[in-house]
Amino acid sequence: MRMVDLIEKKRDGKELSKAEIDFIIQGYTKGDIPDYQMSALAMVIFFRDMTQEERAHLTMAMVESGDQIDLSAIEGIKVDKHSTGGVGDTTTLVLAPLVASLGVPVAKMSGRGLGHTGGTIDKLESVPGFHVEIDNQQFNELVNKNKVAVVGQSGNLTPADKKLYALRDVTATVNSLSLIASSIMSKKIASGADAIVLDVKTGSGALMKELEQARELARAMVDIGNRVGRQTMAIISDMSQPLGYAVGNALEVKEAIDTLRGHGPKDLEELCLTLGSYMVYLGGKAQSPEEARERLKEAIANGQALEKFKTFLSAQGGDASVIDDPSRLPTAKYVFEVAAPAEGYIASIQADRIGTAAMLLGAGRTTKDSAIDLAVGAVLRKKVGDTVQKGEPLVAIHSNREDIADVKRMIEDAYRITPDAVSAPPLIYDEIRA
Amino acid sequence: MRMVDLIEKKRDGKELSKAEIDFIIQGYTKGDIPDYQMSALAMVIFFRDMTQEERAHLTMAMVESGDQIDLSAIEGIKVDKHSTGGVGDTTTLVLAPLVASLGVPVAKMSGRGLGHTGGTIDKLESVPGFHVEIDNQQFNELVNKNKVAVVGQSGNLTPADKKLYALRDVTATVNSLSLIASSIMSKKIASGADAIVLDVKTGSGALMKELEQARELARAMVDIGNRVGRQTMAIISDMSQPLGYAVGNALEVKEAIDTLRGHGPKDLEELCLTLGSYMVYLGGKAQSPEEARERLKEAIANGQALEKFKTFLSAQGGDASVIDDPSRLPTAKYVFEVAAPAEGYIASIQADRIGTAAMLLGAGRTTKDSAIDLAVGAVLRKKVGDTVQKGEPLVAIHSNREDIADVKRMIEDAYRITPDAVSAPPLIYDEIRA
Repeated sequence: MRMVDLIEKKRDGKELSKAEIDFIIQGYTKGDIPDYQMSALAMVIFFRDMTQEERAHLTMAMVESGDQIDLSAIEGIKVDKHSTGGVGDTTTLVLAPLVASLGVPVAKMSGRGLGHTGGTIDKLESVPGFHVEIDNQQFNELVNKNKVAVVGQSGNLTPADKKLYALRDVTATVNSLSLIASSIMSKKIASGADAIVLDVKTGSGALMKELEQARELARAMVDIGNRVGRQTMAIISDMSQPLGYAVGNALEVKEAIDTLRGHGPKDLEELCLTLGSYMVYLGGKAQSPEEARERLKEAIANGQALEKFKTFLSAQGGDASVIDDPSRLPTAKYVFEVAAPAEGYIASIQADRIGTAAMLLGAGRTTKDSAIDLAVGAVLRKKVGDTVQKGEPLVAIHSNREDIADVKRMIEDAYRITPDAVSAPPLIYDEIRA
Repeated sequence: MRMVDLIEKKRDGKELSKAEIDFIIQGYTKGDIPDYQMSALAMVIFFRDMTQEERAHLTMAMVESGDQIDLSAIEGIKVDKHSTGGVGDTTTLVLAPLVASLGVPVAKMSGRGLGHTGGTIDKLESVPGFHVEIDNQQFNELVNKNKVAVVGQSGNLTPADKKLYALRDVTATVNSLSLIASSIMSKKIASGADAIVLDVKTGSGALMKELEQARELARAMVDIGNRVGRQTMAIISDMSQPLGYAVGNALEVKEAIDTLRGHGPKDLEELCLTLGSYMVYLGGKAQSPEEARERLKEAIANGQALEKFKTFLSAQGGDASVIDDPSRLPTAKYVFEVAAPAEGYIASIQADRIGTAAMLLGAGRTTKDSAIDLAVGAVLRKKVGDTVQKGEPLVAIHSNREDIADVKRMIEDAYRITPDAVSAPPLIYDEIRA
C-alpha cells in the first residue's frame, strides 16, 4: 500500500477501507507517512468528506494509535459528557455531582487546556485544598465509593489525533466535519467511556456558527459512537450568548453551587437537566430520559445533589465549607459595573468577546505555562431579551487590577441594545439520538 | 501574510493576488513555507483550479525563483517548441535543422531525463563525435553562425517548480491543469524563449488521455504565454499510437534523416511541417503559417534542411557522414520481427506499451544514472488502419540481447487487430492561438 495511491483514491471520490485507514493512521503516528502527505489527504477530506463507515474507521484507528483508559474496575456504565466548547459553560461542575447523586458513576478525566477560563480542574482548584493528585487505584476507589472523582489526563491518548490536529491547524483543514467528529469521538472513546452525551453548541460563540452545521456534526458523532458500540446521544444548544451568568473560575464554582441549590440561572439549570437526564438514562438508572429528569429535579430539591458535591470536594482534599460560605472562594480585589449606554432591549451578547474580556482579566491561559487568576472574571446582569435602563449595570467585572479600560471596551462592544422588543433565543434546538 | 490564511482563502474559492502568489513561491523556495502547507495548497488548487491571472502569476513567480537564461546575444526571435511527451517523438531532431534552414534561430537547451528513450541530447550522441560540451559563448556564436545549436541544461532554472513537482508526485496533485500548465510554461520562459510553440499530445500514450483535457491544457498554456508577453500557439496532436515508426535513439536519428530527405513517415512529416510553420511564422520569417509551410516543404525538397543538419552536427563535433550513410550509426546485434497473430486491420497500438518495450531493451533510463543503449529500440511496420496478413511483420525489434520474450510479449499486447476496416486517427485535432 502506498500513501500517494490512497490520497488519489480518496481524491477521486472512492471510499477508503478499514485496512487503508489503519495503514494511514499507523504510518502517520510512527512517522512513516510524512506531514506533507497527511495534509494533502486532510485537504481531500475537506473537499470530499468521508462516509459514515470511514469516519468510524478513522475514529477507531486514532483510538488505537495510543493508550486506552481501562475503567473496568469501576462498577456501572461509565457515561461521559462532552461539550464542543463555549463561554461560561459551567455544566460539568453541576453535572458531575448531580448525576452521581443518582448513582451514575462519573469518572471524569479532565485537562487544564487553553481558553477563556481554565479547565474543569482549574475551576475546582478554586476550592481551597482540592487537588487531583490521585493515582489510578485511588481514582477507581473514589468513583466506586462516591460515584464521582476527577483526575488529570494521563497516558498517551490518541497521539495520531494530537499530531493530525496540530497539522490541520496550520493547513486550513480544521473545518472538516468528518475530521472534527472523529477527533472528538476518538478522545472520548480512548478515555474509556461506555456511553457518551454530546452537547454541540451553535451560535456566534461556538465553532459551528450555523444550526445546520451543528446538527450535521451532532449526527456525525452520534453515528460514529453507535457504530463503534458506544451508546451516544447529542443535543444542540445555544451559544449565541454566554451560558448562565458567570465567566471565570471561582465565579463559575459559585454559580454551580447556586444551581445545585436550585437558585442558578435558568438556562444553565435547564441545560444541566437535559444533559443529565440523558446521562442518567444511558447510565441505566432510569427507564427514560423523562423519568431521569424528574429524579434529577428531586435530587436538587432535596439537597442530595449539593450533598454529593460536598462529599466529592472533601474526598479530594477540598474545603467543603465553601458550599455554605462561597465567600471562602478566591475573591477579586475590585468589582466594577459596566453600565448600559442606552435604554432598550438586549438584542445580542457576543459570547466570544465576553470570553476575551475574562481572558484579559487573567481568567484563562494564553500559553500552556501561563498562570491563571482563579478569582477574576465577569458576571452578566442582563441577557438577550432583557430590558435595560440607561446607566443600569450590564456586567460586573471582577478584577485584581484597577485599570480595566480594555476589558470594559470589550464588554461594551459585546452588547447590542435596541429599542424594539427582542425575545430570548431558544436554549436547546434539537436532540439527536441514533 | 500567513500561509495558512492563503490556503484558506483559496480553499474558500477566492482569488490569490500576485503579491500573495509571490509570497508563497518565494517562501517555499527558501524553505520558509514547509512542504505540508504547500501540499495542502496544491490539493486546494486541484479542487478549486486557478484563474488565468493566478496561473500567469504562478508561472512568473516560478520563473523568478531561479536563474533565467539570457539569449539576448543571439540575433532574431528565439522560438522554442515544447511537446507534452509521447512515444517515438522524433520532431525535435527534424525541426531543429528544418526551421534553422529558413533562418529562425534554434537555441535548444535540452536534457537527458527519464523516459522510454533518451532525451534529444542522447539521441544526437548516436552520431559519432557529437557532443554538447560547449560554453555559453560558444553556444551563442554557433546559433548566430548556423542558426542552430544544442546545449545541456545548466544553471538553477525554476527551483520552485522542481521542488513543487517532486512534492506533487507524492501527494496525488500531479493532475492539476493549472499546475501542469504553469510548470511547463515556467521552464520554457526561464529558458529564454521569446515565443513558444506547444505540441499537446492526446490519446492513450499521452498524459492527457481525453481530447477535451488536452484542449484545456493547450488553452491554459497559450493564455499564460501571451499574458506574460511571449507569443504562444499550440496544436493538439494524436498520441493514441506512436508517432512515426521508430522508437529508440539511433533509430530515431535515422528516421529524422529520412524525414529531412522527404522520405520519412507521413505523420511525422506532417507534424513537423505544422509545428515548423508556426515556429517560422512566430520567428518572423514568414507572413503567415501557410507561407511558412510552403517554404519548409521547399527546404526539404531542395536539400537545404538536410544540409543544415550536416552543418549542425559537424559544428558540435559530429560525424556528418552518417547522414549519407546511416549504417555508421550504432547498430543493434539482432533484429527480430514480431509477426501478426491474425489477419485483419490494425485497430489500435498502445503507445505506452511500445515505449515500455523500448525501455526493456535498454533504450531509456529508469534512474538518473542508468546507462542507455543507443542502438536498440523498435521500428513499427504497421500503424492504425493498416491491413495485415497473418504472420506478416508488425514490428522489428532491434536488440543487443538474444532472449527478448518479455519485449515480444509487450509488443504483441500493444497491438489489437480486428476483422473490420478501421480508419487511421486524425493526426492533428486542433490548433489554439491566442
